[in-house]
Amino acid sequence: MFDERIDDLTSDELERERKVAGGLAEATRGLVDAVIRSTVADEEMMAVTAEVEALTARLRASQIPGSFGVSHTADGTVRGHGNAVVGLRNAVAPPVHVKHSPEGRAWADIHLGAAYEGPPGLVHGGVSALILDQLAGEAAAAGGSPGMTGTLTLRYRRGTPLGDLRVEAWISRTEGYKTFVSGAISDAEGVTVEAEGIFILPRWAREGATPERFE
Amino acid sequence: MFDERIDDLTSDELERERKVAGGLAEATRGLVDAVIRSTVADEEMMAVTAEVEALTARLRASQIPGSFGVSHTADGTVRGHGNAVVGLRNAVAPPVHVKHSPEGRAWADIHLGAAYEGPPGLVHGGVSALILDQLAGEAAAAGGSPGMTGTLTLRYRRGTPLGDLRVEAWISRTEGYKTFVSGAISDAEGVTVEAEGIFILPRWAREGATPERFE
Repeated sequence: MFDERIDDLTSDELERERKVAGGLAEATRGLVDAVIRSTVADEEMMAVTAEVEALTARLRASQIPGSFGVSHTADGTVRGHGNAVVGLRNAVAPPVHVKHSPEGRAWADIHLGAAYEGPPGLVHGGVSALILDQLAGEAAAAGGSPGMTGTLTLRYRRGTPLGDLRVEAWISRTEGYKTFVSGAISDAEGVTVEAEGIFILPRWAREGATPERFE
Repeated sequence: MFDERIDDLTSDELERERKVAGGLAEATRGLVDAVIRSTVADEEMMAVTAEVEALTARLRASQIPGSFGVSHTADGTVRGHGNAVVGLRNAVAPPVHVKHSPEGRAWADIHLGAAYEGPPGLVHGGVSALILDQLAGEAAAAGGSPGMTGTLTLRYRRGTPLGDLRVEAWISRTEGYKTFVSGAISDAEGVTVEAEGIFILPRWAREGATPERFE
């Protein structure tokens, strides 16, 4: 189950949440990286484990019952802070800070570290798919044609090195409720992965509801 | 950069690493979930943030310089404990515990919680792609035809609910260095996402090297 909330937050309060919860998630991303790479003694690792569990218990003293879902602020802003790619609160997310333009383009500069590895030193092919899916969906929404992923095809031209990368997506055409989006991940040498996706406005969203891309 | 190590670990030592480092990663997964869902006061969240940072510093007192890469034990076991889907040490990974059969089949029962959300209450479409990419690669390797992802196509039949899911992949055919793999994610009601992938043995791996699927 998820929680859909109307939080009557002012923009100041939202900014504070961004700082406080966002800061905690960022610290947690650092911990995730350190857990992968640490070579401290077993005893120290076990001591840290116990402390991580204690901190988790403190955070769980008050929590929502399920996943984050979305919450809406009084001015209609939709927050998807739990999202696995862009979620402010989600330490699984790099997070990707996406920029958009109204003709249906989305792009981001990202840095992927040890937590996103597949083959040694390379980004996991599925992580590339994960990020391209999000960017493609955001491009569709930015162009006024939001939807959920119908199909997504990835072509891996070569390994994508961990480190600094550019990811982008753009609407190539629309057909009724279908939006065709292309995308790519690039390193300094050029494109490493290409994507083509079809995004479809769900039936339940075609009447009445304001179309929106859930983050 | 990544670190390729020969760790002359006995199976007892490997089991201990599994317990110690694996236990720390598991505790960190709990923290990641709690950070998304917590509603404790800002002051408490900031206090926890400072403690998370202190724990990270303790783990970083000794660490490998880059990503985990792979390490080999004396008996030839390849460990990809940093892998974004199956990595024992990686809190971004659910982790997926994959089973294999030698005719080229891989499967796993998984539980995806709040950290894997896209649309409210649903698995992020890109997370489904991430997991299917890994399973498809493992199916190819299990059948003796390892490779890196060449292309991957996902068809989303309907939303995949967060919770308990089954994921599987199987070789449909091989052509020289290309292995064609199909896969699916299912919930209790049936298939939610289908995948088709082509896995290609890299040129550098075609001569001399023992073919292996990097986890």
